[in-house]
Amino acid sequence: MTYKTDIEIAESAELAPIKEIAEQAGFAAEDLELYGNYKAKVNFTAFEKMIDKPDGKLILVSAINPTAAGEGKTTTSVGLGDGLNRIGKKTMIALREPSLGPVFGMKGGAAGGGYAQVVPMQDINLHFTGDFHAISAANNLLAAMLDNHIHQGNTLNIDTRKITWKRVVDMNDRQLRHIVIGLNGEKNGTPREDGFDITVASEIMAILCLANNLEELKEKLKNIIVGYTYQDEPVTAGELNAHGAMAALLKDALKPNLVQTLEKTPALIHGGPFANIAHGCNSIMATKLALKYADYTVTEAGFGADLGAEKFIDIKSRMAGIAPDAAVIVATVRALKMHGGVAKTDLNNENVQAVELGLPNLLKHIENMQEVFGIPSVVAINKFPTDTEAEINVIKKKCEEIGVRVVLSNVWAEGGKGAEELAHEVVKLCETESTLHHPYDLEDSITAKIEKLVQKVYGGKGIELSKEAEREIARLENLGYGKLPVCMAKTQYSLSDDPSLLGAPENFDITIQKVKVSAGAGFLVALTGRVMTMPGLPKKPAAENIDVTPEGNIIGLF
Amino acid sequence: MTYKTDIEIAESAELAPIKEIAEQAGFAAEDLELYGNYKAKVNFTAFEKMIDKPDGKLILVSAINPTAAGEGKTTTSVGLGDGLNRIGKKTMIALREPSLGPVFGMKGGAAGGGYAQVVPMQDINLHFTGDFHAISAANNLLAAMLDNHIHQGNTLNIDTRKITWKRVVDMNDRQLRHIVIGLNGEKNGTPREDGFDITVASEIMAILCLANNLEELKEKLKNIIVGYTYQDEPVTAGELNAHGAMAALLKDALKPNLVQTLEKTPALIHGGPFANIAHGCNSIMATKLALKYADYTVTEAGFGADLGAEKFIDIKSRMAGIAPDAAVIVATVRALKMHGGVAKTDLNNENVQAVELGLPNLLKHIENMQEVFGIPSVVAINKFPTDTEAEINVIKKKCEEIGVRVVLSNVWAEGGKGAEELAHEVVKLCETESTLHHPYDLEDSITAKIEKLVQKVYGGKGIELSKEAEREIARLENLGYGKLPVCMAKTQYSLSDDPSLLGAPENFDITIQKVKVSAGAGFLVALTGRVMTMPGLPKKPAAENIDVTPEGNIIGLF
Repeated sequence: MTYKTDIEIAESAELAPIKEIAEQAGFAAEDLELYGNYKAKVNFTAFEKMIDKPDGKLILVSAINPTAAGEGKTTTSVGLGDGLNRIGKKTMIALREPSLGPVFGMKGGAAGGGYAQVVPMQDINLHFTGDFHAISAANNLLAAMLDNHIHQGNTLNIDTRKITWKRVVDMNDRQLRHIVIGLNGEKNGTPREDGFDITVASEIMAILCLANNLEELKEKLKNIIVGYTYQDEPVTAGELNAHGAMAALLKDALKPNLVQTLEKTPALIHGGPFANIAHGCNSIMATKLALKYADYTVTEAGFGADLGAEKFIDIKSRMAGIAPDAAVIVATVRALKMHGGVAKTDLNNENVQAVELGLPNLLKHIENMQEVFGIPSVVAINKFPTDTEAEINVIKKKCEEIGVRVVLSNVWAEGGKGAEELAHEVVKLCETESTLHHPYDLEDSITAKIEKLVQKVYGGKGIELSKEAEREIARLENLGYGKLPVCMAKTQYSLSDDPSLLGAPENFDITIQKVKVSAGAGFLVALTGRVMTMPGLPKKPAAENIDVTPEGNIIGLF
Repeated sequence: MTYKTDIEIAESAELAPIKEIAEQAGFAAEDLELYGNYKAKVNFTAFEKMIDKPDGKLILVSAINPTAAGEGKTTTSVGLGDGLNRIGKKTMIALREPSLGPVFGMKGGAAGGGYAQVVPMQDINLHFTGDFHAISAANNLLAAMLDNHIHQGNTLNIDTRKITWKRVVDMNDRQLRHIVIGLNGEKNGTPREDGFDITVASEIMAILCLANNLEELKEKLKNIIVGYTYQDEPVTAGELNAHGAMAALLKDALKPNLVQTLEKTPALIHGGPFANIAHGCNSIMATKLALKYADYTVTEAGFGADLGAEKFIDIKSRMAGIAPDAAVIVATVRALKMHGGVAKTDLNNENVQAVELGLPNLLKHIENMQEVFGIPSVVAINKFPTDTEAEINVIKKKCEEIGVRVVLSNVWAEGGKGAEELAHEVVKLCETESTLHHPYDLEDSITAKIEKLVQKVYGGKGIELSKEAEREIARLENLGYGKLPVCMAKTQYSLSDDPSLLGAPENFDITIQKVKVSAGAGFLVALTGRVMTMPGLPKKPAAENIDVTPEGNIIGLF
């Protein structure tokens, strides 16, 4: 059997004009700004006119700790949205936008897969509606104004060794990780060390996703810390008078983007922050907009539930005033086998024992979702042709023992049809009464917040702080940032901070190397190690195979 | 009397939906991609279906050497387009896109002025339809692939000291002019000197503007030289397999953007290369598209006629296979007074003698346009309230002696009404039989080409070559680039290479410091001195006054 590639499926799909999708979703024509026939931005007014309407149900799709085998979270989210629509529930999907950089590196496109995709796939994976370009421009305007301030006399007394604001480019470009800028004499700036991040790592990306409206966006931009003075006082974007112009650059980027799935389910694809140094969720504005217009909104959070779902609960939910009514935990038999110790090359062979050995990872995430966060949950097994009944039965049996249903999902091959059972289960869960719990209180000390996350969510013992982290925590609490939520920057591959500890490790400590503040976005970042904020290209970049026909069709994206 | 600012006029204008403008212009709905209600991209198909239709008339707007007093070339172009429509001629305007960077520096907007503006002004001055972002991305993808090639083993044997391809950002950021990249060990690239240019200085900008279609764009991208090997052989983007992915990033940017003037004249605003290191004209695709759909197309070229018009004739016309039917040379009484030696602070006082002293600058440009290039021309005096009848009469008298009409134009205050007389004169000129002359032949040696430009167009004696330029000319002719047209990078303020020599200097030599090739764009660049390819921000950047209201309206652009 030959499979079509994602781009082949996407290209052969017949799309509905986005105006029709919008009408079906309930958006008024005057609230739309069309970007071609198949993309639109939805204006702020669309939300405002529904302000008194009660929200629909919110479904959060999360997953076990990811492995090299992949778990298919985005694909499941798309398929579930289609499945809900198929069983007659008015549903909208709210997902993140892919980053341009990685498209040219390893991974190709990122808009679902198989028959569970968001389209137009080419556009979504490249410039889309320009949001990331706007974020890059706003980020780099602030950097230029900062260095210009220093060049023109530095009245704010900024210590050029303590500048924290970096420039960004939406490209995988390791050559820009560590650089020295401002060389060649006094007409050309001030020599100092610096580096570029990839655009998705910009604090502005997190801000765009956490702002409830344009005014809040501007306020958050104003609070960005760009560096510190010689006296260690923070210097903000507001002090540079940069926030107004930055907001002007971002005013359209803040509007959610409307597209559709292959089955014509409306999809708001908007924002895409990192899931380590940031919170890894699509924009609050898109999620809240979907909640007003649809009865069911399907959204996802980055990485596994220990990082993504936790941040959804502790950061996004808090700032947006929303709570998931149900959660889907995506797993695959193959990934559980890897958690059980099987090498990637052996995944095609049945191995019931390995599934059993890997199960504790899934079980811990179920416990987190249901007991720590208090969200009624279902497990979705994203089906592969190599899965055997015996393997699946092990999962079902164990989960049923703890009262959680396991549903097979086959959306890659079947689209929404492959998620109908999952959709029914989700609808049922949404009827369950539930109350969201937060693993920590904002009033807790920074150290206590991190400890609670480690003990309640990761299943570890406690934390160790580096000398640097200790100093930074004291300083940040002194500066008044102690009451912010904590964004953990930790490996996604393990519940611990050691990527080689698969399954559900116990008795481990988490070591916090550094703590910093994203004062604009409104969270603290606790780093357990170095986080790569600028990827590199591989030996043979995907870009070498990407091309465009004379008619303007892109080939080589997959 | 109080004047409204440009943005106040633009904001109070009632725009027609771009679909109506398109229909009036003759574009089929299926050839448009809407970007909101007031912007659209025009697909390649629109040109193809008119391929057999004869072109309309082409009017080139140029000017005297610019002074600090400003001459209003873009404003006159917009007003003339409106004027032609007012007298019943089906007209389209084809102009350059403004660059984002300078908007935040000194100058505010750049889409005409007063009642002769292109709208929506906010959008055109900020992200517009994303063309410049796409150019930045394509430029920086090539840079990342180049450095990645070196990092991964450098099989092409590139000498990292001879890399000519720079990264770009659409921002005024002097701090990035001279940098060192690839620091911090072997995992993070290869240490080398580098620098960023502003996006409009990218060779890709020139390529986008000189490509006749997508295939030609890709071919030109392929030919870009990124640097040289240790053996001094050029290394191209094609050898890095980068051109396909770059073209994919640029496929939409290559489509002309349709907007409107305040008087609803259709305007194609597309591309915006530098007028020194590049040719300074809007895109070939936009100009040729306008020629197919309108009876009269008004376009302009950067700086004065010695640079802009000359490059239009020698580079753009050659590559596009088009020729202007008439030319407008814009001058102001104030600018002529400056050419006559008056200081900027004294321009409000009548000074007939100064006008007379400045006139030779205008007369030389008339001679160039009519005799050197062979284009029937008219002089447009862009009117200011301080101009006196005596001053204007001096100009009229002198020009009439050499058989050229002088027409007053008052488009800033009156829009198209202020250009009706100019429009009538232009229509008359377009009926004149004329043949385009090129000041040099492509077969001439590089040195002969430059000499002919100096003698015929600038009115100088000859050229001096630096040792470096001599070596480079020999090398470029050896490499087979000797038959390309020459793009002069010279001060715009004087016919000579000395910005302080106003009027019409004589007996001067032009010194060529360097000669390089833009092998993708398809021209040689002869530099008479250093050209600034990355501007800086001023002490108080315009960005500090730019803001956005909670409703999403931008303020502080002007």
